[in-house]
Amino acid sequence: MVRVGIVGASGYTGVELARLLAGHPEVRLTVATSRQYAGKPLAEVFPNLRKRVDLVCENLSTDELIDRADFFFTAVPHQTAMDIVPQLLAAGKKVVDLSADYRLHDAAVYEAWYQKHSSPELLGEAVYGLPELYRDRIETARLTANPGCYPTSVILAVTPLLRAGLIDPATLIIDSKSGTSGAGRGANVGTLFCEVADGFKPYKVGGTHRHIPEIEQELSLAASTPVTVSFTPHLLPISRGILSTIYVALTGEGKTADLQALYEQTYANEPFVRVLPAGVPPATQHVRGSNCCDLSLQKDLRTGRLIVMSAIDNIVKGASGQAVQNMNLMNGFPETMGLLGAPFFP
Amino acid sequence: MVRVGIVGASGYTGVELARLLAGHPEVRLTVATSRQYAGKPLAEVFPNLRKRVDLVCENLSTDELIDRADFFFTAVPHQTAMDIVPQLLAAGKKVVDLSADYRLHDAAVYEAWYQKHSSPELLGEAVYGLPELYRDRIETARLTANPGCYPTSVILAVTPLLRAGLIDPATLIIDSKSGTSGAGRGANVGTLFCEVADGFKPYKVGGTHRHIPEIEQELSLAASTPVTVSFTPHLLPISRGILSTIYVALTGEGKTADLQALYEQTYANEPFVRVLPAGVPPATQHVRGSNCCDLSLQKDLRTGRLIVMSAIDNIVKGASGQAVQNMNLMNGFPETMGLLGAPFFP
Amino acid sequence: MVRVGIVGASGYTGVELARLLAGHPEVRLTVATSRQYAGKPLAEVFPNLRKRVDLVCENLSTDELIDRADFFFTAVPHQTAMDIVPQLLAAGKKVVDLSADYRLHDAAVYEAWYQKHSSPELLGEAVYGLPELYRDRIETARLTANPGCYPTSVILAVTPLLRAGLIDPATLIIDSKSGTSGAGRGANVGTLFCEVADGFKPYKVGGTHRHIPEIEQELSLAASTPVTVSFTPHLLPISRGILSTIYVALTGEGKTADLQALYEQTYANEPFVRVLPAGVPPATQHVRGSNCCDLSLQKDLRTGRLIVMSAIDNIVKGASGQAVQNMNLMNGFPETMGLLGAPFFP
Amino acid sequence: MVRVGIVGASGYTGVELARLLAGHPEVRLTVATSRQYAGKPLAEVFPNLRKRVDLVCENLSTDELIDRADFFFTAVPHQTAMDIVPQLLAAGKKVVDLSADYRLHDAAVYEAWYQKHSSPELLGEAVYGLPELYRDRIETARLTANPGCYPTSVILAVTPLLRAGLIDPATLIIDSKSGTSGAGRGANVGTLFCEVADGFKPYKVGGTHRHIPEIEQELSLAASTPVTVSFTPHLLPISRGILSTIYVALTGEGKTADLQALYEQTYANEPFVRVLPAGVPPATQHVRGSNCCDLSLQKDLRTGRLIVMSAIDNIVKGASGQAVQNMNLMNGFPETMGLLGAPFFP
Repeated sequence: MVRVGIVGASGYTGVELARLLAGHPEVRLTVATSRQYAGKPLAEVFPNLRKRVDLVCENLSTDELIDRADFFFTAVPHQTAMDIVPQLLAAGKKVVDLSADYRLHDAAVYEAWYQKHSSPELLGEAVYGLPELYRDRIETARLTANPGCYPTSVILAVTPLLRAGLIDPATLIIDSKSGTSGAGRGANVGTLFCEVADGFKPYKVGGTHRHIPEIEQELSLAASTPVTVSFTPHLLPISRGILSTIYVALTGEGKTADLQALYEQTYANEPFVRVLPAGVPPATQHVRGSNCCDLSLQKDLRTGRLIVMSAIDNIVKGASGQAVQNMNLMNGFPETMGLLGAPFFP
Repeated sequence: MVRVGIVGASGYTGVELARLLAGHPEVRLTVATSRQYAGKPLAEVFPNLRKRVDLVCENLSTDELIDRADFFFTAVPHQTAMDIVPQLLAAGKKVVDLSADYRLHDAAVYEAWYQKHSSPELLGEAVYGLPELYRDRIETARLTANPGCYPTSVILAVTPLLRAGLIDPATLIIDSKSGTSGAGRGANVGTLFCEVADGFKPYKVGGTHRHIPEIEQELSLAASTPVTVSFTPHLLPISRGILSTIYVALTGEGKTADLQALYEQTYANEPFVRVLPAGVPPATQHVRGSNCCDLSLQKDLRTGRLIVMSAIDNIVKGASGQAVQNMNLMNGFPETMGLLGAPFFP
Repeated sequence: MVRVGIVGASGYTGVELARLLAGHPEVRLTVATSRQYAGKPLAEVFPNLRKRVDLVCENLSTDELIDRADFFFTAVPHQTAMDIVPQLLAAGKKVVDLSADYRLHDAAVYEAWYQKHSSPELLGEAVYGLPELYRDRIETARLTANPGCYPTSVILAVTPLLRAGLIDPATLIIDSKSGTSGAGRGANVGTLFCEVADGFKPYKVGGTHRHIPEIEQELSLAASTPVTVSFTPHLLPISRGILSTIYVALTGEGKTADLQALYEQTYANEPFVRVLPAGVPPATQHVRGSNCCDLSLQKDLRTGRLIVMSAIDNIVKGASGQAVQNMNLMNGFPETMGLLGAPFFP
Repeated sequence: MVRVGIVGASGYTGVELARLLAGHPEVRLTVATSRQYAGKPLAEVFPNLRKRVDLVCENLSTDELIDRADFFFTAVPHQTAMDIVPQLLAAGKKVVDLSADYRLHDAAVYEAWYQKHSSPELLGEAVYGLPELYRDRIETARLTANPGCYPTSVILAVTPLLRAGLIDPATLIIDSKSGTSGAGRGANVGTLFCEVADGFKPYKVGGTHRHIPEIEQELSLAASTPVTVSFTPHLLPISRGILSTIYVALTGEGKTADLQALYEQTYANEPFVRVLPAGVPPATQHVRGSNCCDLSLQKDLRTGRLIVMSAIDNIVKGASGQAVQNMNLMNGFPETMGLLGAPFFP
């Protein structure tokens, strides 16, 4: 039994980690921190966890944390994560960091989009935690940087095409739509029920969303050439789910390739990626609550462009589920352990 | 490995049964019937099941069904169920029937609310499948009548009070609110998205809902005296969830009893009933996707009336989850097997 | 053209007042205050108002306000209202106050439920602004206390029965459900989209909601005897709408009376009250965006109890629409001016 | 007072027409047809209309219709419309047709996307009813073809750029999202509440949606050259609203032009088009219930692409509101009559 801790348990990724870990046969959740709710049972903060998770939130320094678990999830905002992670590693712990702090390999890029990095020396070591791309390296990692939700939905959708040189990366246009849980549990007017319900809108339009450098880093690696994308996020009046609709021009080779077969082969052995039959588009309601990523390809008959669509649950495959998948790999557990629950519908 | 079959797999209770059974370690789903979708993979009808359930819908006579499984869930409408169940029992199969056909002990009552009963001789044998009340009898039953969704939410909430004689049953008023999945997957204008979304309304007002005789049967048994209730259902713009708010006058003894303690003791060893701390009302979003029933008690300070509140997921504890719980009992499996997943929130 | 001002324009009742007044032919909105958004155009705070309302939010003292309009809506929290209203009246202005500060006639009751009252001398003068009950007095009032949203839905539903002595008031049980806009536009975790969506729950259970004394005051006046009620509010995952389901025992006379006819006669000339045909329950989606109150009566066939149901849009008839209706009466305008827009569906 | 009739009143565009016409001072709704609901008051089919619309649905032949009104809205499916419209015109009536039957100027294109056209001679006469483009011609038209909902949202967004030659039309990618009312009021499993709620998905992907030829016709006219677009519709879990996100490459001239100024000038005198300030994206919840179209422009800083966003209420500006706007023009009424109600929020 591995003892695991959640640093920052009071957000939506925290509660989802707790839910998933409660059903995991090889780990025991031994500590959960929250400054705001210190002293409160986690199941009082999140009553869905009653009778399933029996732990009190604590406000602990990193020093105090260290002895309380063998493995840590840091589910705190960027900048806060890099104050904690180096010390955990130094104490011999393994970490999945759910923040953005260790996702970018280049400190200069990180600093251009966020702020100064306090442990840039770890950027080379941290593994980008997308198991479908980096499984081998995650298995031996001390520190895994759990991908962002939008990037997960985009990178799984586009990488096979870029690796095979079948698309012109300069034409990539990514129109993404996310459920409101992606905005976190902070008390903001903009995410009140009445502001979001029965509505829909784009936000951070024009190349300003912080997931862009992460998407571009991974797509550039897949293409072996720098890739710049148009990425526009939108806010959906649902709690869970991301759907990305991606438009791209095919290369000459791409136009004649059997793209459906390429995807089916690429992901044939992936337990969580489901390539849908030709002509069947994905839907967020069909991945809800699960670690699945549904992919679909469609050529536009009139323009010849390719449309790639992907759907994930942003809190599961886009955050906490993927984090548990990474934890499984880093501990030698079966990769799917605790994660095979089918999506619930309706 | 017990082979189980779902008769009528194309409704919302069918897909939820398939989801739950896919994660159950001791059974294998071997047959799923659907007239409408015969020949289609169940995972094509319900794409959430892709890569998790690998079965094609079939249109089978009961004769053809018999050899295909050892245990059956009949998830078909009332009247259809009683055409199938007797034959399954005669062939030595065990059955959980999710319809209303075997819930009422008295054929005359059944016929007053539904239509003529074709196998009234089974009404005496069928066990009302509420494990918290009838666990022992379910364990040895051939035929379990899975309770209705509203009755489950009401009976668990009121029974302890009636058994202890702490309330005046003549004053029972039950105001229930259900998610739209309770209306089924039929193509009706009344349950279209645009008719239900962003709205709320009562329906079948005035003592006409068919769950009333079922509620009254069980409350009468608990009270050892005939109980007649006011029951008003309402339609919520959510997919899953029932919340019942129940008003009742306390007897003299009831006024001084420690009701919170009574409930905590009654349900102390129940894995799926969660008695909330005093002052904490239940919420459907905290039981979503789980087999939990959350209960809360509150005395009205001004009028002295007692208010009992209960929340369940109508498709899980109100239907398919409870059916699996009954299956576990009828097969000697641990009662909670495959059902311990925590509710998902948000 | 009457110049009108909104004190506290940045909440949901403020934006709805601005929307309704923009379509009113006899008034001009000349001032809108907001501490938080001072200097911002109101149409920037609420982009729905673009090209329809051309006014900048200001942070003004009551002194500064006085010359800016002839008529005022105070749409500020209780306690804040009573700091402003007396001064407006002293300057010869007429006021509709949307807070709770002048709704209760008895200062002791106000102080028991809220806090010390600073202008109790106005409680006798303020008219309770339910035009269907107090039209004549509103026409000559300087100060109208606009009713609460829940009370509006309850008082219109029950008053005809109480006045005619057809029910036993001691048996009144009121189960009310409100859309989330009723909770205001404050940034609270509890009203975030992800906390409310796809869920349902009771709150302030047990006789603690502050609308109770207001309901009891008006029902007592109608009954000519003190009335105490059980009132339980619930939170709906919709933006607009209140539905109240009210249970009550009929008196001997009530049992034989033609209640449908009573309601149809009582409200025959009311432009905003719609008594539905027998057997048709109301729905919030059928009053959405309008000043209508839909009422329906149904006897419970099994228990003989009467069930009265009412639906309003909590921001319109439950707040801003009723405020405009009161303004019309206080200024000698046709009562329905600017308010006859039909509900929008879907 | 002009007498107007609605042919096909039982769909969502029918009820919205009735709502808007009820508030119009210069017309009187004198006849509403519905085969399905013949004999029923329209306000019984759509209870929001009670006390506002007093008309019984009738099942009438076109012959019988003719004397009942001076002006007609045909709100029936394509193919049905062309069975009725010619006869109405022959009888000297004016018509706004809300179907697709007279939107395309080229019968061959119509027949490629729909079926054989029975009155192709009218295609040359019918005016495409987008007042912002064709106001003058609508004023004198006998037959106005009311635009589709998606085309309205796209054409208003892109036309100024194409007319000025500032974009490369070959690069146009249109990612549109629509509320569920766009799918109509037919009883289909796919639009049941439980199938749509809390979810999101693309549909008719790959250049197959029937609004494409209409979009291309109008964009080609604006560009004075044939335009082919990538158009992908998505289904939103909301009742009302369309948001289109449009990606396009700027020409050399386009890169240096002041696009914000171009849009502000183009639409300066349009009562229903609101060009949002730079950096403010549109939101469907800010046009809800109104005839407004909100537009916003943003250059992608990283790729140089232009992103144009538009939001409308699909039932109002995308259907019934625009139809009333056309009716106003065709009758010499002020264009905005009955349509100036501000959007309601929340």
